[in-house]
Amino acid sequence: MEDVVIRTLEKVELRNPVLIEGLPGVGNVGKLAADYLREQLKAKPLATIYSKFFPPQVYVNEDGIIRLVSNDLHYWKGPPSAPRDILVLGGDYQGISPEGQYEITQRVLDYCHGLGVREVFTLAGFAQGRVVDDPRVLGAATKPELVEAMKKFGVVFSRNDPGGGLIGASGLFLGLGRLFGIEGVCLMGETSGYFVDPRSAQAVLKVLAKILEVEVDFTALEAKAHEIDRIAQKIHEAEARTTEGAPPSGPTPREDLGYIG
Amino acid sequence: MEDVVIRTLEKVELRNPVLIEGLPGVGNVGKLAADYLREQLKAKPLATIYSKFFPPQVYVNEDGIIRLVSNDLHYWKGPPSAPRDILVLGGDYQGISPEGQYEITQRVLDYCHGLGVREVFTLAGFAQGRVVDDPRVLGAATKPELVEAMKKFGVVFSRNDPGGGLIGASGLFLGLGRLFGIEGVCLMGETSGYFVDPRSAQAVLKVLAKILEVEVDFTALEAKAHEIDRIAQKIHEAEARTTEGAPPSGPTPREDLGYIG
Amino acid sequence: MEDVVIRTLEKVELRNPVLIEGLPGVGNVGKLAADYLREQLKAKPLATIYSKFFPPQVYVNEDGIIRLVSNDLHYWKGPPSAPRDILVLGGDYQGISPEGQYEITQRVLDYCHGLGVREVFTLAGFAQGRVVDDPRVLGAATKPELVEAMKKFGVVFSRNDPGGGLIGASGLFLGLGRLFGIEGVCLMGETSGYFVDPRSAQAVLKVLAKILEVEVDFTALEAKAHEIDRIAQKIHEAEARTTEGAPPSGPTPREDLGYIG
Amino acid sequence: MEDVVIRTLEKVELRNPVLIEGLPGVGNVGKLAADYLREQLKAKPLATIYSKFFPPQVYVNEDGIIRLVSNDLHYWKGPPSAPRDILVLGGDYQGISPEGQYEITQRVLDYCHGLGVREVFTLAGFAQGRVVDDPRVLGAATKPELVEAMKKFGVVFSRNDPGGGLIGASGLFLGLGRLFGIEGVCLMGETSGYFVDPRSAQAVLKVLAKILEVEVDFTALEAKAHEIDRIAQKIHEAEARTTEGAPPSGPTPREDLGYIG
Repeated sequence: MEDVVIRTLEKVELRNPVLIEGLPGVGNVGKLAADYLREQLKAKPLATIYSKFFPPQVYVNEDGIIRLVSNDLHYWKGPPSAPRDILVLGGDYQGISPEGQYEITQRVLDYCHGLGVREVFTLAGFAQGRVVDDPRVLGAATKPELVEAMKKFGVVFSRNDPGGGLIGASGLFLGLGRLFGIEGVCLMGETSGYFVDPRSAQAVLKVLAKILEVEVDFTALEAKAHEIDRIAQKIHEAEARTTEGAPPSGPTPREDLGYIG
Repeated sequence: MEDVVIRTLEKVELRNPVLIEGLPGVGNVGKLAADYLREQLKAKPLATIYSKFFPPQVYVNEDGIIRLVSNDLHYWKGPPSAPRDILVLGGDYQGISPEGQYEITQRVLDYCHGLGVREVFTLAGFAQGRVVDDPRVLGAATKPELVEAMKKFGVVFSRNDPGGGLIGASGLFLGLGRLFGIEGVCLMGETSGYFVDPRSAQAVLKVLAKILEVEVDFTALEAKAHEIDRIAQKIHEAEARTTEGAPPSGPTPREDLGYIG
Repeated sequence: MEDVVIRTLEKVELRNPVLIEGLPGVGNVGKLAADYLREQLKAKPLATIYSKFFPPQVYVNEDGIIRLVSNDLHYWKGPPSAPRDILVLGGDYQGISPEGQYEITQRVLDYCHGLGVREVFTLAGFAQGRVVDDPRVLGAATKPELVEAMKKFGVVFSRNDPGGGLIGASGLFLGLGRLFGIEGVCLMGETSGYFVDPRSAQAVLKVLAKILEVEVDFTALEAKAHEIDRIAQKIHEAEARTTEGAPPSGPTPREDLGYIG
Repeated sequence: MEDVVIRTLEKVELRNPVLIEGLPGVGNVGKLAADYLREQLKAKPLATIYSKFFPPQVYVNEDGIIRLVSNDLHYWKGPPSAPRDILVLGGDYQGISPEGQYEITQRVLDYCHGLGVREVFTLAGFAQGRVVDDPRVLGAATKPELVEAMKKFGVVFSRNDPGGGLIGASGLFLGLGRLFGIEGVCLMGETSGYFVDPRSAQAVLKVLAKILEVEVDFTALEAKAHEIDRIAQKIHEAEARTTEGAPPSGPTPREDLGYIG
């Protein structure tokens, strides 16, 4: 089979489309933000991406129906007042080998370039290794003009972060994008790196919504963040009791913090 | 060499053939069931599948003759009263890398599609992590009509199982099958996951035989199940004695429980 | 680059050539035997095999000259009285991945088939996990006629050995060979599996020389075997002294037993 | 995408160019030497090499601009008095798999051969496992004439070093180079193998500068070596104090010795 198979679900003409990438990763920040944007925009399915560089796995939904793991492109055609149309890339996995990362990214970029994409925003989490109460949004870009433009939206370009660079799809879409003449920005929400972080995703998406000039209702994402806070608090309390010698009063719902976006 | 080499042993015309897949996996349930079906039907060799994604290994039989590891397709032409012909896929291994899994599955599906296959049943074990006395048969399917049809045969579609989806050939034949227009069902026999489980295979095959409208004599499979019970019982007793401080009265035949289907 | 590059060093016409394979493996038995046969026959270089499935490594000889790791084919044109010409395959490594094993074996078989090879003998060690004083030569073959023919040369075909089959080049040259219409035999010298074993290689080569109707002077190989015996004896004595509480009387030359064929 | 992508930045005609390879490796000796030579010669960018055999990673510079990991070729056109032009190959990584090493090396050699390269010098560190005060430069070459020529420049060809051969790009450029008719030498600076070693790089570069008949000002490299000495001394003192029972007087700057060339 082809290394990467892209199935187009609908033929569309897009107006100066911008690509938003958010795949699973640190704190699932990028995926949470991209999925939430897609839902808020009510973006429509455009294409499904299968690859032998994903795990050989199907998911089973509640009705017993299987679905092969994939990445997916959705599109949003804005009103005449919107500056441009939007493509959102999400999915179950990043490529599971370095070669797979390159192959999938290259094919998706090629496909999106064919749809007219000349700019990409990649969304990611930046692990600080400590609890982050008020996550900043860090940036990296393909050219100085974009750095300057992003600073106006509050994006922080730090001398030291990210020190070792970006590993995975969020970096590669920028790095390989340049070979296609696609410029771009990576927006990284600070996060602890220990669990899924809707609050960090919200910080990223707030910045992105301003950049894209779209309106996003954050109610549901805030609820999700509160729920995670509540669970983290319970764990904290249970651990405090354990440390004091008292048995925990029930099963700690740690598994609810798992990476199930 | 080609990644996957399919050698046709006999040219046959098949009538609306259905593909049954049973390769090594959890409890060897799928392989036990598919091999037993093949033997009961006296299905004939149709094609041998070699691949560089299998281990670089040959088996040696009792006469000293080698055989390269492979997967194999057998066919059964039913009597005029039978609703359709049957293809059975079995073998020594699944592909040993994710890419290999995709490549082999895709090639076999392509080949079977060429033979007229439009429906596939994949057989597998579902590890419960505990002894299962009366194994249920769980299901997953490619479309709601198949879910409804399977329920009539006693297949259980559970809200929670399998939670993380299906990994390996049994899932992939369904997931990739849909790209070929092949619909299908995975039948999973509950099993402990600790040893080969003919009883679970029997449960799966009983359901499948009803679906396929073929008669299967389960005597030999039941004997195999009793033998495993007997060995498990011996181990249990030996362990009980060891725990009590008495030395075990002989070598425990634990190796007989090994994954040698 | 091509996955496997075969550089022909000399164009030769061979008379009904038989291929002898002996690459590094258990006890280095196959490599020791094949290399010794090549030296005894004064076989000439025919082709060099490079591959990206070997390690990215060069060796440096005593004069400071590098050599890229490779496999190598040598040929021997027998006198008119000899039943046929001989090709010997040796080298530094087997392919380091399963795919690599398949690719290299397939390419070498294809090349040798083009030279007229229709029969192959693969040489290997069979690890018994205990000291073997008088190594038997075990066999496996592609067809019953060869099993019968080999028994006359004292090759043992055991009901139980090798139980799990053959892994690596010695098995694959037989298994893939059949796809080229090349029949063959694997000759396995029993060995402990703990160090390089010239004695086992000698046992294998004695059988092979009779089969091929060539004369081999075993003096140098016997000397090598005696040296290994002497070193093993020293280690044994040193360990005995250590066990008795006395310090060993000098550095144990265990490293001399290393896999440097 | 292609396995290896070479982007030419400037078309140039070179006069009998020689290739100098220095990629990350033991003590970063090769990379330090090649990078320093490139800076001293003020060599200009000629081509950028991307590959899916590098990690899927981008670096972010101090201004927030990303750069996809790569290897890079720079060229230096010497004055009419210079014997020939020079190409310098450096970069962030070697290929991260054996296959990748072969593929990248083969493609770069092919490209350089097209530019007229017929000779290559590869630069590397040779780990001695102990502190080396006055590093020698060891050599390995593709032909005896080069061994003799190198000895006149003080390069040491040792009967025993490197015993196991050379692994990685520095060996492969010689080994594969011969298949292109490119002869060459590997220059290995002795180093402990425990940290980056500018002093060893200096020893290598001093020899190379004489061979290439170029002038190199070693001031900056010596300063770097002194800094490493100073840090190593501090660690040594801190460890001595710790051994004496006194707490270390501050954070040991061990991380400054990390492999960040």
